[in-house]
Amino acid sequence: MGKEKKFVRDITPMDQDFAQWYTDIVKKAELTDYSSVRGCMIIRPYGYAMWERIQKDLDEKFKATGHENVYMPLFIPESLLNKEKEHIEGFAPEVAWVTHGGDEELTEKLCVRPTSETLFCEHYAKIVQSYKDLPKLYNQWCSVVRWEKTTRPFLRTTEFLWQEGHTIHATEEEARKETRQMLDIYADHVENMLAIPVIKGKKTESEKFAGGVDTYTIESLMHDGKALQTGTSHYLGTNFAKGFGMQYSDREGKLQYVHQTSWGVTTRMLGAIIMVHGDDSGLVVPPRIAPIQVVIVPIAQHKEGVLEKANELKELVSKVSRVKLDDSDKMPGWKFNEYEMKGVPIRLEVGPKDIEKNQVVLVRRDTREKTIVPMDQLETAIPKLLDDIHNSMYERAKTRMEEKTSIAKNMDEFKDAVDNKTGFVKAMWCGDEECESKIKEVTGASSRCIPFEEGNVSDEDTCVCCGKKAKHLVYWGKAY
Amino acid sequence: MGKEKKFVRDITPMDQDFAQWYTDIVKKAELTDYSSVRGCMIIRPYGYAMWERIQKDLDEKFKATGHENVYMPLFIPESLLNKEKEHIEGFAPEVAWVTHGGDEELTEKLCVRPTSETLFCEHYAKIVQSYKDLPKLYNQWCSVVRWEKTTRPFLRTTEFLWQEGHTIHATEEEARKETRQMLDIYADHVENMLAIPVIKGKKTESEKFAGGVDTYTIESLMHDGKALQTGTSHYLGTNFAKGFGMQYSDREGKLQYVHQTSWGVTTRMLGAIIMVHGDDSGLVVPPRIAPIQVVIVPIAQHKEGVLEKANELKELVSKVSRVKLDDSDKMPGWKFNEYEMKGVPIRLEVGPKDIEKNQVVLVRRDTREKTIVPMDQLETAIPKLLDDIHNSMYERAKTRMEEKTSIAKNMDEFKDAVDNKTGFVKAMWCGDEECESKIKEVTGASSRCIPFEEGNVSDEDTCVCCGKKAKHLVYWGKAY
Repeated sequence: MGKEKKFVRDITPMDQDFAQWYTDIVKKAELTDYSSVRGCMIIRPYGYAMWERIQKDLDEKFKATGHENVYMPLFIPESLLNKEKEHIEGFAPEVAWVTHGGDEELTEKLCVRPTSETLFCEHYAKIVQSYKDLPKLYNQWCSVVRWEKTTRPFLRTTEFLWQEGHTIHATEEEARKETRQMLDIYADHVENMLAIPVIKGKKTESEKFAGGVDTYTIESLMHDGKALQTGTSHYLGTNFAKGFGMQYSDREGKLQYVHQTSWGVTTRMLGAIIMVHGDDSGLVVPPRIAPIQVVIVPIAQHKEGVLEKANELKELVSKVSRVKLDDSDKMPGWKFNEYEMKGVPIRLEVGPKDIEKNQVVLVRRDTREKTIVPMDQLETAIPKLLDDIHNSMYERAKTRMEEKTSIAKNMDEFKDAVDNKTGFVKAMWCGDEECESKIKEVTGASSRCIPFEEGNVSDEDTCVCCGKKAKHLVYWGKAY
Repeated sequence: MGKEKKFVRDITPMDQDFAQWYTDIVKKAELTDYSSVRGCMIIRPYGYAMWERIQKDLDEKFKATGHENVYMPLFIPESLLNKEKEHIEGFAPEVAWVTHGGDEELTEKLCVRPTSETLFCEHYAKIVQSYKDLPKLYNQWCSVVRWEKTTRPFLRTTEFLWQEGHTIHATEEEARKETRQMLDIYADHVENMLAIPVIKGKKTESEKFAGGVDTYTIESLMHDGKALQTGTSHYLGTNFAKGFGMQYSDREGKLQYVHQTSWGVTTRMLGAIIMVHGDDSGLVVPPRIAPIQVVIVPIAQHKEGVLEKANELKELVSKVSRVKLDDSDKMPGWKFNEYEMKGVPIRLEVGPKDIEKNQVVLVRRDTREKTIVPMDQLETAIPKLLDDIHNSMYERAKTRMEEKTSIAKNMDEFKDAVDNKTGFVKAMWCGDEECESKIKEVTGASSRCIPFEEGNVSDEDTCVCCGKKAKHLVYWGKAY
């Protein structure tokens, strides 16, 4: 235990300073590193391997629902960005501008894409003529840039990785169905791959996407009680269609504007994984996206037969999981700590005594529970244990979210909930933006979403702020 | 045949204007499109799907040889780019500069990465201390920017997609082995996935990478007799290690510089596919990277049972290949032309008469050969035919390359070969850069590589330019 204590001392305890705990984990689990480029992060192999697993799962889901990948230019000419008024107002303050190429000063400056709506619109306007060309269901994986003054790895950086889906449809109904479908795909991914429970809902007017009609969101709760938006899906209506002339002739030969959606998730999701599952010993990686699911640590590996058996076990276990054998000359205790820090779901220990008994010790990262398993049962025991770990990680996060969700009937209850219980506050709202901003001012909590479920408002319900008749139940919370 | 002629008229014949033929194919096969961003291309779904297959195959090969993916920032501060003298001299004239972020003017301008050597170096210098930390075998998939005045889709664009591998090693021997290994992986990929034969060799001093020691290359020959470099792998020695302080302590505790490599391939490979395999009817896609390997075209699809059978066949064929059923209401002849233009390797025709006889018609895109195949043999016939197509595409390209490769003993023969035979010219060279540039000036052909194979130089061999004793056999050619 002495070693573990020493190790734990290396990272700031969560209760002491949550922000520092986060930074320590990101750094010590080797997820990211800083470079001399202010505000940008280097995503290191261990962090990037998680992102690749997220990409793979989502990309398969996108393709299974008929989406195709494309690549749009990194740069957007100023005049193109300016075509949709609200859009440019939303993004202009935070874009990076290229003004010189080679030795020349450019005649028109180019912004580094903060999002690619305008490029997709320009392209769609060109390639779509008839209802037969619809829908177009495109997606792109890339990086985008938003100039940020204060940054934190994964949560807020000048450059980040994401995917952006942009689709156009003949009818509003179809486009709205797509918007919801993509949100459901995100929710499914976050819950079933990342073991993070979500609240699905709609953003209020003031929190929605610049230039869109409706923004749907999935919101999750972090360990410190703050909310994080892990994915959004926008119904854009015909706003961009009008600005960019995206029209098609319908079955009767009449020109119509297309109905549009866009939707995205980013490397923020890696931040959510840390802040939902991590503990004072480090990261806890959800098994289904873990780059290493099982690490084999040989005990007394200098003794005859140990490394040989460890290699045999690696062969065996690799049939059912992503496995790493650490046969370096570090002490087992040191290895234990390292893979705890990295959040590897299962540690498999094997030493001379285990070999005698034809067994191994399996240690779960999430609960630290130990089980002794006969070697010949590993092929079934490992996948089962990985599923168990996923399920208990999800359940623990869900229980915590529920425990940290309060109901507030008036502003005193609201303030008390935000200050003392942290987490989500469920409270009724009249729909007036004035009340929304007052709540934010007084409590620090912003509206996270109007939930799709449990959204019933009765005649007696009144706004938590002004006391007038309520229109919506809203999830509120301090947020990243 | 009337229809085919009409269709062919839509693209400029190759012999008439090769550049226009290329542009027509890129556009009409829907590989790329232009946008309002000068010099940048939109990669459309059909083109991007090919790039994804290239990525998948290479990424698997990189990972199988121990490489890990990372992500480095898009921007490089001017001072960091300046750290390696030859490197900055090589790239400075062609970079895009970000000078403003949001409303602020930046205190130090940032270039949009033309390549990420400097960022990798800075990171490696930080994370490597001991010989135990070596080697580091990193790769990244991203886009890079080089300011180009004249551009052509895939071949030369201001922004393009690529992968860049950057590795560091304890010894020169190990680094040189890595450099060769990666070139071999590229050659394997280009020959066995893209069906394009390559010449492997070393670049001359004047053609090598800015800041490196040795550049290895694979060179292929296009339909018009011009060469295209499809991949390069560089041994960088300790040049960057010295500039960036990349040192490690060896087993004796002595500080040593690391030995470095870098290697990359780009979306240029898609240009090579077009120019090696395409014909006057359009693209011919190598089967192993074809997004659609088999297209099913129903004949008389309004007749009872035809579409039903076509759907059944789609199910069956999808077990062994990537298949698309086109049941749109276009005429079969129109569909034939469309998928010829898109270069789909196999067309499967099925109509009422075929159904009666329990057979289908298979038409190869490359040779237009037709075969009648019983339906119950499709599961074996299709994979075999795809392999046959791959092999004949490779063989045809190889024969063409050999036919277009001349040997020149003197400058007259050299000029004659370049002007009248086109293709590669094999000629002896003294090793003097003056002769190299004179050859280029007089013939228009640059040195492509000093081949690894057939590189024997005898005492009697003399330089094709100056007549002095020869040092190397060189492949020369006009190039993209």
